[in-house]
Amino acid sequence: MRFVAEIGKLKGVLRQTELAGPGLARPENSAEHSWHLAVMALVLAEHAPAGADLGKVTAMVLLHDLVEIDAGDLFLYADAQEQERQEVAERAAADRIFAILPSDQGMQARLLWNEFMQRRTKEAKFARALDRLQPMLENLTAGGGTWQRHGITADQVLAKVELIEDGSQTLGALARELVGEAVAMGILAPAPA
Amino acid sequence: MRFVAEIGKLKGVLRQTELAGPGLARPENSAEHSWHLAVMALVLAEHAPAGADLGKVTAMVLLHDLVEIDAGDLFLYADAQEQERQEVAERAAADRIFAILPSDQGMQARLLWNEFMQRRTKEAKFARALDRLQPMLENLTAGGGTWQRHGITADQVLAKVELIEDGSQTLGALARELVGEAVAMGILAPAPA
Repeated sequence: MRFVAEIGKLKGVLRQTELAGPGLARPENSAEHSWHLAVMALVLAEHAPAGADLGKVTAMVLLHDLVEIDAGDLFLYADAQEQERQEVAERAAADRIFAILPSDQGMQARLLWNEFMQRRTKEAKFARALDRLQPMLENLTAGGGTWQRHGITADQVLAKVELIEDGSQTLGALARELVGEAVAMGILAPAPA
Repeated sequence: MRFVAEIGKLKGVLRQTELAGPGLARPENSAEHSWHLAVMALVLAEHAPAGADLGKVTAMVLLHDLVEIDAGDLFLYADAQEQERQEVAERAAADRIFAILPSDQGMQARLLWNEFMQRRTKEAKFARALDRLQPMLENLTAGGGTWQRHGITADQVLAKVELIEDGSQTLGALARELVGEAVAMGILAPAPA
C-alpha cells in the first residue's frame, strides 16, 4: 500500500511531450504516458516479435518510468553527458522505489526494469519500440510539438527510429512513413542540406 | 493507429478525485487513474480471487474508462437518475470508440468492457474493487479530497466498500480499516447520529 501511494507521484512528473486536443494543451505526465503505452501493447500485440510474452511487455511499460519520480524525465535528444547523469540518477531511484515493495516483488520489478533498460530480450525491444513510437504520434497530433520547440530535424528523428525497427519491423516502417508525412505536412523540418 | 491517437483524449477527461503531492494539487484524469489501477493489479495480484486471470484484469482496467472520452466521468455518489443517464451515454461511447479498432479487436475490447460493467466474473469483480479502492487512497493522501468537498460521511463510504469486499476479502477489510483511520484523523466525517 505504501508503494501504491508512492507511485501516485508519477502523475506529477512532466515530460517534454506537449499534448493537444480537448482540455489538453499541456505537457504530458509520465503516468498517463505509461498508460498509453500499455494500451498500445494490447492493441498492437500482433506487431510484437514472435513468441514475445505480452503480459511481460505490459508490466514493463507500466513500471518503466517509476524511476522518474526521483530522477525526472530527460528529453530524448539530450546529449551524452546528460544521459549518463540520468542513468546514474535512475539506478539510485530504482534502488529506493522498488525496495518499498515486499522483497520478492521488489526484486521482480527491479529485474523487469533492468531488462527494459538493457533492451536485449524481445519483450524489452518491443516495449522500448512503443516507448519511442508514442511521442512521435503525440507530436503529429500536436502539429509538431517537441520537434518544433527544439528545432529537431527529420534526420535526427530517423536516427531514433532504428530502435523502433529493432523491436518491430512493421512499427519501424510505420514510423518512417510518419516522418515522411510530418515533413510533407511542414510540421517537421527536413534534414539540413 | 487511429485508435491509438483517439484514446489520447482520455488524458483530458477529469475525474472528481483531487490529487495531492509534488507538482500536483489538481484533478486526476482518467488516463493516469487507469495506469494506477493497472499497476495495482500487478502488485496486489495476491489479493485477487483464486484462479483469476490477471492479464485480463489488467486489460480491463486499462480500457475501462475509454467510454469517458465521450461520456465524461460521473461522481461515485451521483444519484440514480444521473447514473442511468451515464450508463446510456457510456454504451453509446463504447459503440463508437471500440468500433475504431479492427473488428475482431473491437469486439474483444467491447466484450471485456461489458464484462467489467456487469461485474459477474472474478476478473471483473477484482478490477471493480481496484477501481473503487484507488480513489479512497487518493482521498487519504489528499487529506480528505472529495469526501470533504462533497460532505460525504463514513457510512456512505462504507456502503461503497461492499463492492471492494466482493472482489477481494482482504482489500475490502483494508478499505474498512482506512475508513476508520480517516474518521480518526478527522478527514472523513462520521455517520450522522
